[in-house]
Parts: sequence; C-alpha cells; structure tokens
Amino acid sequence: MGSTAPTKAELNGSNFKITRTTSPRKVPEPGSAEELSHSHCTDHMVTVRWTAAQGWETPEVKPYENLSIPPTASCLHYATECFEGMKVYRGYDGKLRLFRPDCNGERLNTSAQRSSLPGFKFEELKKLVAKLLQIDGPRWLPKSRPGSFLYIRPTIIGSGPHLGVQIPKEALLFIIAVPWPDFTKLKQDQNDDSSAPAPKGLKLFASTPDAIRAWPGGFGWAKLGANYGPSLQAHGKAQAMGFDQILWLFGEDRQVTEAGASNFFVVWRNAQSNQLELVTAPLESQLILPGVTRRSVLELVRERFSTEKQQAEGSSLAPLQVVERPLTIHEIETASREERLVEAFVSGTAYFITPVAMIRNNDLDISTLGQGGKPAGYAAQIKSWLEAIMYGKEEHDWSYVIEEEK
Amino acid sequence: MGSTAPTKAELNGSNFKITRTTSPRKVPEPGSAEELSHSHCTDHMVTVRWTAAQGWETPEVKPYENLSIPPTASCLHYATECFEGMKVYRGYDGKLRLFRPDCNGERLNTSAQRSSLPGFKFEELKKLVAKLLQIDGPRWLPKSRPGSFLYIRPTIIGSGPHLGVQIPKEALLFIIAVPWPDFTKLKQDQNDDSSAPAPKGLKLFASTPDAIRAWPGGFGWAKLGANYGPSLQAHGKAQAMGFDQILWLFGEDRQVTEAGASNFFVVWRNAQSNQLELVTAPLESQLILPGVTRRSVLELVRERFSTEKQQAEGSSLAPLQVVERPLTIHEIETASREERLVEAFVSGTAYFITPVAMIRNNDLDISTLGQGGKPAGYAAQIKSWLEAIMYGKEEHDWSYVIEEEK
Repeated sequence: MGSTAPTKAELNGSNFKITRTTSPRKVPEPGSAEELSHSHCTDHMVTVRWTAAQGWETPEVKPYENLSIPPTASCLHYATECFEGMKVYRGYDGKLRLFRPDCNGERLNTSAQRSSLPGFKFEELKKLVAKLLQIDGPRWLPKSRPGSFLYIRPTIIGSGPHLGVQIPKEALLFIIAVPWPDFTKLKQDQNDDSSAPAPKGLKLFASTPDAIRAWPGGFGWAKLGANYGPSLQAHGKAQAMGFDQILWLFGEDRQVTEAGASNFFVVWRNAQSNQLELVTAPLESQLILPGVTRRSVLELVRERFSTEKQQAEGSSLAPLQVVERPLTIHEIETASREERLVEAFVSGTAYFITPVAMIRNNDLDISTLGQGGKPAGYAAQIKSWLEAIMYGKEEHDWSYVIEEEK
Repeated sequence: MGSTAPTKAELNGSNFKITRTTSPRKVPEPGSAEELSHSHCTDHMVTVRWTAAQGWETPEVKPYENLSIPPTASCLHYATECFEGMKVYRGYDGKLRLFRPDCNGERLNTSAQRSSLPGFKFEELKKLVAKLLQIDGPRWLPKSRPGSFLYIRPTIIGSGPHLGVQIPKEALLFIIAVPWPDFTKLKQDQNDDSSAPAPKGLKLFASTPDAIRAWPGGFGWAKLGANYGPSLQAHGKAQAMGFDQILWLFGEDRQVTEAGASNFFVVWRNAQSNQLELVTAPLESQLILPGVTRRSVLELVRERFSTEKQQAEGSSLAPLQVVERPLTIHEIETASREERLVEAFVSGTAYFITPVAMIRNNDLDISTLGQGGKPAGYAAQIKSWLEAIMYGKEEHDWSYVIEEEK
C-alpha cells in the first residue's frame, strides 16, 4: 500500500521472441572430432537478460553465436556465474524427455542466489529448455537415433559493465545444447578426450591436505563456477599421473566428499551389522553438491532394493541399506583390506553412473572392485533403471516430455 | 636433444600490433556519473591471446570494445579467471608512474598458475600496461591534473570453446584502464556508489561462521575471481544493515583475516610489553591476499618508524613495531575495552589506505578509533609517504616511469 517500488518482471518461460537461423550448422557424427570437442552446439540458444531495475526481459531463442561481453563485466573478474548440467534424451518411443528438470530449476535458483545473481521461479527453467529443444530436437536428436542424448547447459552470468566489487546489476541467463560423447559407445581409439572416464572403471587420486575443494561456510554445495576453476590444478596433476579424477577429501579425518565433479558412492558390508550398505557423504555438511543423479540413485535404491520388492523383481542382488553419513578414506581402505568392499561408483549428469576401479591415497592403492576384481552389479542395475526412465522404456513421473515442432 | 615438442612463445611485452581508435571516447569529469560507474574505460585496451599449442601471440593495442566470447568458454562456467588491480599516477612533476608493477606481475603469474591459466615472465606485465598508458595517458590523465590516477585492470580468462571440465586450452590476457573516483575528493552528495568507503572511517561487519571467505588448502591467497563472487552475498547483507564491508573472520578462535577485498591492520599497545604494535594477519596461513599495498605499508613502517629515523624526520608519532601474526576479534575487542587500541585501517589498491571507525561482532560494537574518538595518525602518515612516492614528490625505486607519446 503506497509502495513506489517498480514491479520487476519475473522470469517467464511461456513467451518468447524467436529468431530462426538461416544457416543451419552441421550435426556431428557420433564419435567425431566435433562431438568430442564438447563445444559444437546446436543451431539455437536461449538468452534472457535481467536488470536490477526491470527484472527479467522476454526470453529469446536465436541463432547460436558468441556472446558480446563488456571487458568490465563481473563474470570475467569476480566469478559471478553459476550453471546447471542436464540432458535431453531421445526415447525408444520416439519422444524427447528431460529428467527431473525441476530439480535443476530449483538448484540453479539456489546457486544464483548464492552468487548474488537473480533468482526465478524454478519451474520456468524447464520451459526455457523445452523451447530450445522443441526447435533443435528434431534435427539434432533425430528419431532415427533412439537411446541418444544432448547435453544442456543453462548458465547465469553477471554481464553488466560494473568493475566495482558489488552485487551484479545486470545478468544474462543463457541455455545451450551440445552433442556430448557417449563414452560407453566409443571405441577406445576414438577416445582421446582427457576428460573422459576410463572404460574399465575410474582411477581416483585422493586429494592431499593442500588441495581443498570446499569447506564449511563456503559454497561447495552450490553449482558455482568458483568451485571448478580452482580445482583444475589438482585435477591436472592427477591426470598427468594417469588418474581420471581427484577424490576430494576433507578434514583431519580425511572424509570422502566428491570425485571430480561427481558424487561418490561405496557399497560395502558393514563390519558390525554384516548388512550391505550403500554409503555416500551427507548433504548437511554442505561440502558436496546435491546431485540430481545422486538423489535419484538414493531414491531408487530405497524404493527398489528393499528385500520384498527386490525378490519380486527377480534380481540376484542382495538388498542394500542406504546410509548418508560422513565416510573416511580409512574406512574404505579397511573395508577393502577386510574384503568387505563390494563396489564403488560415481554419479553425475555429464558422465552418469561410472564404476570406480581404484583409489590411490598417499602411497596406498585401494581396490574398489570387490570380490573377483569386478563390480557386484549394483551400479549397473541402478544405471539400467535410470536409463529405462530417461529413454521412455518405463513411464515415470521423473520424465518431462517435450512436444517437438513437426 | 631429440625433443619434438614445439616451442611455445613466451609473453613478449616489447612487440605490439597497434590499431588506433578513430572515434575517441569522452573523458569523464571527476565525480561524474561516468566516473562513478567504474566502467567508462579509456580509448584502447591491450589483448594477448594464448593457445596451448602455440603459446602467447603478439600483444595487440586496439580500440576498447566488448569481447566476443563463445558461450562454451570456461571463464563463463568454471571461473577460470584471475586479475590484478593497479593504478597509474599523474605526478606533480608531470610524469606518469606505476607503483611496484613487478609485484603485480608476479602475483598475476602466481594467480594464473593457481587457476590453471598460462603463466608468463612477470616483468612483461608492466611493459604491456605501460604501452596502453603511453597511448591513453596523455588524454585520459592529462598533465593539467597532477595528483590524479586511473585504475588499471589486467585480467586473464579461459576463453576457448571447451565445455568439458578441463585445463583451458585457450586464454586471453586483457588490460583495461578506467577513471576511478577518488573518494577523498568527492562531496558526500556525489557519492551514491554503494562500494565507496565511508569518509569518516569504515564500519565493518564481522562475518559469522556460516560465511567463510577462504580456507587452508584453498585459494584465498591468490587473486582469483572465485574469491569474489561468492563473497558478495555476505557483503550485500552487511551493506543493507549500513556497514561498508565484511571483516572476514576464520576459525574457532575467530581470526581476523581481511576486510572486504582489502588487508586489515590494527595499531595497539601490547598489554604485556607496553610496546606500540602494527599488527596484521600473516601470509603463511594462506588465508589472505598478499597485497602490494600491505607489503609496502609493512616495509615503510619497518624502515621509517624505527626510533632513530622517526626522530630524525621529526614525526610526533611514537615508534611502531611490525607484527605479522594471527590476531583474533577478541583481542581487538579487549584492546578497545582496555583503551589500548590506537587505530585500525585497511589497505588495497582500489581504496588505498582507509581508516576503520568501528567493527560489529555479533551484537557488540567495537570502536577502533582510539583515544579521543579519532585515529592517531599512523594511517595518514603512511598514506602520505605512499602518495609522495606514487606522485613523484619523492624519487623511489618503487616507481616505474612511463614514457608517453607526445
């Protein structure tokens, strides 16, 4: 009543200004150099400008092109930037699907606020992504290639010309889509991408105390650019020694937090209870990213690996109890030595569910493959469940179907 | 011997490709809106491209313009970015000077390596900066305005199109120069810039344990973008409560580390020794930025506030002992309560030497003004010494004179 504050526009994913490309780009072949570049984007991109004075402007779909950014923009100096990783899947029924896109919408909104960038109603993000794929889906993820996907990258950056250290007064949300190699389908000699996981299971290098990814009171729990660049130094050293990723440890007790940019899971037999457990780091400590795949893994295991269900579905795998708690590298080492370790894997959008073969901690190599030198099969089972949902073999409310243009 | 590795070019600040502007920009008046924007840059900028295959390309001086950046560039997603803050000073003798530019060159090289960006020979940076000011100095910092300065921002970003999380294969070093408000010369009503310090001394809000700027094993000691964006949230909250900056505390003992993006100093009388001390956080813990101004303050005080010298120079201020050690907010509170606190100030390039009036820690307001409610004068003396060097009143080997174009 009597407020003179101007009404700032909310993000609205239902109304677009659309400019079509007149020079369609080449769709890369699976396994081609263009695809392995992770950067050969589709024909269009979505951009939405925001200003502190007016709020969110009308979203645009326009031809993919370089961004014109002032040299004084805060995203180039102060890392005012956050992002999401999503995929769009071409189902075996011919439909295009997103996987739990509102989870990404919620997290991007949270990350934006943590980095002093503008927030939005989370459900608008999936509408923006869907619009891009309505237009680019038919050609870039054709019905002739069921079981394939594109990687989607929604990003928000501080884009205005303000060199002073201050909360951004202008921002840009942009969404790009890019063919992404499916490493499970590549031949070994095609795979010269240093960021690709090893086919036989990841080799992880446990971080040393001079390399900390995240800390309490920090921002490791949000998907900020600031979590990634500073981690590349340790990652590069590990790769130079022949490892795939860093396993990020934290604290004097060397808690296991994340692997590379993925969540980390171990399956072991509890020494006290003799119960099989799926253990992963908890969200409460705010040291790890709350992964959408992580959450889905835990929910599926809780729902489907309970004894009765699992018997009903005829799985040969024994039931698993989900445990979210701090776990240490010493516990993993002990479990491996005592032959209680069954399996380890990582989860994330970019590289999905990938087994872990071993961990080097200081001078000690820990096998995480379990009995007989191979995974027990939990990760494979979980991956299969997720793929069934993603590619429409199973109807599930985690799927969001995109209506494409003809 | 027998190496087939290609020779990668080093950064070379002695050879330029120069393109002059044909439409010179307006030079803003002191105190104007353009100047207060911190973003109205000079006519030209320096850019140097780097690729992993070839190394550093020939530096360019060209008209100031927006950067064209691929939406997949790692600087927009993974905060592969670092920068320096410098100033160029128009001396009272008409000369243009940089202040200890090799210190900035060394730190930028260190920051670049910490963020997996390309390094360089530190002494090249000052040559690049000097070339820009040779061209833009005469018009943007005219001899008719001695005692004024421009702010210089050298920046390195990961600029190549590589969306995978990996060490950048392309980078861009760019240098821009921008008129920057001199807050000591502005009238109060001109100063609507929320990032400007208060004229009567800063009001600092001590951070709470849920807002931690840096961590041992992290990167708080390097000038990475990743240190800034995530700090804006706490900064914004403090400003909304009427404070100028956050005073960043760390650890269970609440160590005082930095104030905003500046180094923090306190002058107090030691309760045991009765000695006057200048105390600041140490570099060894890697929690604070190794400020060029910080270092200069400590060196000048060590050199000039020893008893004999100070007597010789006729200062009325008693001698000071420099102490670099962890100090806690409780020590400051106790010193204030026991009337041993003499003065507090912050140092940095952007806002130089600025007194601190008070600190709020939880619900307690701590006065840092010393006896009589005003600073004792150490900060003012140090500032005066530094200005004499910067503006050529005193010949000093910290100065680097730029030869301008006629």
